[in-house]
Amino acid sequence: MQIVVPYSTDDPKSRLSSILTRDEREEFSRAMCLDVCETIERSGHQPVILSNGQVDTEYDSVIDQRPLTKAVNAHLQSAGLPLGIVMADLCLITVESIERLVATDGEVVLAPGRGGGSNAFVLRVEDFQVDYHGASYLDHRSIARSLDVSLRLVDSYRLGTDIDEPDDLVEVLIHGTGQAKQYLESIGFAIDETEGRVVASR
Amino acid sequence: MQIVVPYSTDDPKSRLSSILTRDEREEFSRAMCLDVCETIERSGHQPVILSNGQVDTEYDSVIDQRPLTKAVNAHLQSAGLPLGIVMADLCLITVESIERLVATDGEVVLAPGRGGGSNAFVLRVEDFQVDYHGASYLDHRSIARSLDVSLRLVDSYRLGTDIDEPDDLVEVLIHGTGQAKQYLESIGFAIDETEGRVVASR
Repeated sequence: MQIVVPYSTDDPKSRLSSILTRDEREEFSRAMCLDVCETIERSGHQPVILSNGQVDTEYDSVIDQRPLTKAVNAHLQSAGLPLGIVMADLCLITVESIERLVATDGEVVLAPGRGGGSNAFVLRVEDFQVDYHGASYLDHRSIARSLDVSLRLVDSYRLGTDIDEPDDLVEVLIHGTGQAKQYLESIGFAIDETEGRVVASR
Repeated sequence: MQIVVPYSTDDPKSRLSSILTRDEREEFSRAMCLDVCETIERSGHQPVILSNGQVDTEYDSVIDQRPLTKAVNAHLQSAGLPLGIVMADLCLITVESIERLVATDGEVVLAPGRGGGSNAFVLRVEDFQVDYHGASYLDHRSIARSLDVSLRLVDSYRLGTDIDEPDDLVEVLIHGTGQAKQYLESIGFAIDETEGRVVASR
C-alpha cells in the first residue's frame, strides 16, 4: 500500500523552539521523517513524502505548497485507494504498529493521537476527505458518520505519540530506535529523572 | 484474573492543583478509579482497589499505607499469580484494551505510558517485583532481562495515557466515556480549540 507521509519543511516543529535552534529543529524533523519512511518500507509498504518544500531524500516525494488538509486531499485524488497517511513526526512507530494499522478492517481506519489529533489513517473509500484543523479526531468521526462510512480505530501508543512539544522528546529517548533518537543524543539530550518527572534535558 | 488497581487517597493528583481544588482532585481521582474498576469488571475480571486510605466503594479493596512499590509487591505475594496491575488513573481504558492486555502471552506483560511509566501489567511469574520509581518502564525491562523472564509489551494509547497533568484532561473529554468525563463536564470543563492547541478549559 502507498503510505503518504505529510512533512513540513517550513519552520518545522516550531513548538520545540524553546529548546532546539532552528537548525536543530530542521535536522530533528528530517530525522523523524526518515525514521517513519524507513519503518513503512520495512513493513512492506511504499512511503511517499508529501512536503511543502524540497526534501533531499531517496524516498519518493511530492511537493505541494498548499496547506496540509488541501495537499493531503489533493494527493488522495491522484494516488487512488487504498491509501495510508502517517504523519512524519511519528518516529516511535514500529513495523508491528504499521502492520496493525494496515491489517485493521474498515473503510476508514484511524489511529488517534494526543490532543485529538488524527495521527494515522488507512482510507479505502472515495468521498472521505481529511480535515486536520483542531481536534480532528472528533471531526473525522463526525465526517465518517455523516457519510455512513465504517470507521475503525487503532489503539496504539506508538501511533498516538506525535512529537511536538518539549515534554515529548523524552518519549523519543525512551522508545525510539532510529535516527531521531540518535540525533537528540548527538546534541546532548538524555533522560533526566532528577525533578520527580521524567524529561529530556541537556 | 484479579486485577489490582493502586489508588492514592493522599493528596491525590497533586500535579492538577493549578486547575482543580483539593476537593475536585479527590472527586476526580475517585471517578477515574471507579471507571477503571467498572471497565475491568465488564471485561470479566476482578478489580481489587489497593489504597493507602479508606475508599467508600462496593469493589473489593485492600488498605496498605506503605509507598506504592512496597504495597504492590506485598499484594503480589499475598494475591498469587497471575495478577494484573492497572493504575487507577487510566480512565480511558476500554474492555478491548483490558482484553488485549490479558490476552498477551509473556511471563511479564507491560503497557508503557507517558514519561516511561509502567501503566499496566500482567504478571505470571514469581520473583518479578515492581519498582515504580522514575522511568520505571526502562527499569522493568532491565529487571525482566536480569531475571531471564519473557517480557511482552502492549502498544495501547488507552493504557498508555495516565491522567496526571492539566494537558491530560482534554484526553478524558475526547476519549472518556464514564464518570471521570462526566465529572469534568459537571464542573465546567470543555474542549477548547481557541489557542491553536486543543486543551481542556473552563
